Amino acid sequence: MTVILFSLCVTYIAAQVGAEIAQRLKMPAVVGEIAAGAIIGPFALGWAQKSEPLEVLAEIGAVLLLFSVGLETKLGDLKKVGAVAGMVGVAGVIFPFVLGASWAHFSGFAWNKALFVAAAFVATSAGITARVLKDLGALGRIESRVILGAAVIDDILAMLLLGVVSALQGGQGVNFASLAWVLVQALGFVIIIALVGTRLMRKQSSLLDAPINPLSPLTLCLAGCLVLAACAAYIGLAAIIGAFLAGMVAAESKQRHALEEQIIPIMAFIVPFFFILTGMQVDVRALGNTSALIMLLVVTVLAIIGKLVGCGLGALKLGPRSAAIVGTGMVPRGEVGIIVAALGKSAGVFNDTVYAIIIAMSLLTSIIAPPVLAALLAKTPEPLTDVPPDDTDESLLLSVDESGHK
Amino acid sequence: MTVILFSLCVTYIAAQVGAEIAQRLKMPAVVGEIAAGAIIGPFALGWAQKSEPLEVLAEIGAVLLLFSVGLETKLGDLKKVGAVAGMVGVAGVIFPFVLGASWAHFSGFAWNKALFVAAAFVATSAGITARVLKDLGALGRIESRVILGAAVIDDILAMLLLGVVSALQGGQGVNFASLAWVLVQALGFVIIIALVGTRLMRKQSSLLDAPINPLSPLTLCLAGCLVLAACAAYIGLAAIIGAFLAGMVAAESKQRHALEEQIIPIMAFIVPFFFILTGMQVDVRALGNTSALIMLLVVTVLAIIGKLVGCGLGALKLGPRSAAIVGTGMVPRGEVGIIVAALGKSAGVFNDTVYAIIIAMSLLTSIIAPPVLAALLAKTPEPLTDVPPDDTDESLLLSVDESGHK
Repeated sequence: MTVILFSLCVTYIAAQVGAEIAQRLKMPAVVGEIAAGAIIGPFALGWAQKSEPLEVLAEIGAVLLLFSVGLETKLGDLKKVGAVAGMVGVAGVIFPFVLGASWAHFSGFAWNKALFVAAAFVATSAGITARVLKDLGALGRIESRVILGAAVIDDILAMLLLGVVSALQGGQGVNFASLAWVLVQALGFVIIIALVGTRLMRKQSSLLDAPINPLSPLTLCLAGCLVLAACAAYIGLAAIIGAFLAGMVAAESKQRHALEEQIIPIMAFIVPFFFILTGMQVDVRALGNTSALIMLLVVTVLAIIGKLVGCGLGALKLGPRSAAIVGTGMVPRGEVGIIVAALGKSAGVFNDTVYAIIIAMSLLTSIIAPPVLAALLAKTPEPLTDVPPDDTDESLLLSVDESGHK
Repeated sequence: MTVILFSLCVTYIAAQVGAEIAQRLKMPAVVGEIAAGAIIGPFALGWAQKSEPLEVLAEIGAVLLLFSVGLETKLGDLKKVGAVAGMVGVAGVIFPFVLGASWAHFSGFAWNKALFVAAAFVATSAGITARVLKDLGALGRIESRVILGAAVIDDILAMLLLGVVSALQGGQGVNFASLAWVLVQALGFVIIIALVGTRLMRKQSSLLDAPINPLSPLTLCLAGCLVLAACAAYIGLAAIIGAFLAGMVAAESKQRHALEEQIIPIMAFIVPFFFILTGMQVDVRALGNTSALIMLLVVTVLAIIGKLVGCGLGALKLGPRSAAIVGTGMVPRGEVGIIVAALGKSAGVFNDTVYAIIIAMSLLTSIIAPPVLAALLAKTPEPLTDVPPDDTDESLLLSVDESGHK
């Protein structure tokens, strides 16, 4: 147990140091945590090794992170930002997915594996995006509302895609019957939880206060999160999809704001283990040759183009400059992209090079986008549109920022 | 990972159900959590098995729990309650320890093992005690102040003892040179952290706000908690001693109240795994024969007499009735006693029967004491003494209660 405690110390402290350095360099904290993992990990300093305790904490960290993302996602918010966000979200998934799948297939991946690679092109981090927008003081702008709404749709579609492509890895090539069945299961699970679950929660959330335990809204929701995560994993979806849906259900409760407050310290303790383990698995030496670096460059450029063009086209209605802002805002891949990479690695789909490249791409997009976004926002007056402003998104943004921080 | 998630679900939900039932029956939540563990565990229903992930979460839970107990323990509070609490604390440790060691030795344990058994007789749970007092509405009474002050001294002495007896288990009998060296190390570690650490923290706690991360007081203190826990384990003390000292150091910070708030949800998520695992390890069948039940009866009676007489004598200055109140208030063994049992079990000192008996004794004392305490308090007017009232203990009690809850 002494060894386990020391490895927890080293990883937790390294994560904090990394996060602090990244934030002082005006980068998202996750970038620093992953970098710290790569530095202390077995492929560099060797101060920490992958171990079952770390993996369990990392898994719980990922589950809690996605629960908190769900907690910031109200079904109602999806409807309010309306048609523009919907088009941005959908186009922002299709375009990078097709681009990623095409590139991966023509690079030599079998179709089922190529689709997994493509899933990593798709995810935009609602957490990182919201964090960046707040750091730029642009929370109130119409583009920010669209970006956040689209990021939510994007997240759901990306997770659906992830469930589908994960389930495809068992077979030899694309089995359309199994694809359809996976899709039905995934859609059924997501739709039932998202529609029925949220409605039940809206009407019955006072039941969360029924137990004597004054923390029961939190503990019951965490229990629900673990249950849905386990169920999602059981039917072949990623556990984090269940956690995200549990968060979305919890977002409909009256106790939502207390839950958001309470989840922050829990995440501060556990989520860093996910990012540091992610970094520890990056074999920096895998990027140490020209062909890997060229591949990284290509992947990163494709990932940027995919979002910029897909989301930009979806937002053209707001005018070309605002469309560029929306497109740029959707570029940072965050924890969801990294989760896809980690799943792909553990499923044996990605080798060390592809894994390292996808992680590096997620980091690069998160580093490149913020300054560009800042420049675009500074030069662009707010457009006139018919999308009505409302304060729900504001509170959404504020709370996203708090936990997106880690 | 699906299996792990399901086992986490089952244990976490069982813990909540158990806690809820116990609280509705006016018992401490921990009693229900441990009972739930015994019921779903491998010796009864078999719904959950001991596994490394559960053990890691349980260990982290124990560390966090003792960190939070430390967080409610200000060095200054120890001085304020003064001579009476000091005498109660010291007599309340010596008497049960001698009683426990004598009984265990004459029951056939070697001296080093007998001292380990005795350590389980010693601990009073500051958390449970404070919780019980608050439930009885007796927080403001002089006896409550003495009990809480003494419980703190008791905790420290019990942990010192635990460190000493743990380190003795490697050898063959009591080696007085190693005993002295262990004592020097343990005292050195405890005194340096408790005196130098708390002083440094009092002067320099603004450094906790230095990082950009607004949660840095929490994350830095958690990192410090892990470091001291690992260091304590490294020098042969129990990891929880380090965690407790880290909490005591953190209690001196300006950010103490925010830390107390933030630690509550983290504990709500992780600490139940400790108690449920504790319960899962109780082989209820080990208590299923007459000799074991007689042994349990003897141990419980001795554990009650030890505290009642030891603490009662220490508090005689307050008058005989108040001394009885103080003595009864110190009877509940809580998480510390259970931690000793768990350590003894994992160190191979306790067999299944002894382990089950010590856990059952901890539970029985926690169930028996509250109604007796209530009856005594109802009949006894508050005594006149020279111990000055102060509001520090009130805030201490209130915060103890919040986390003692779990």
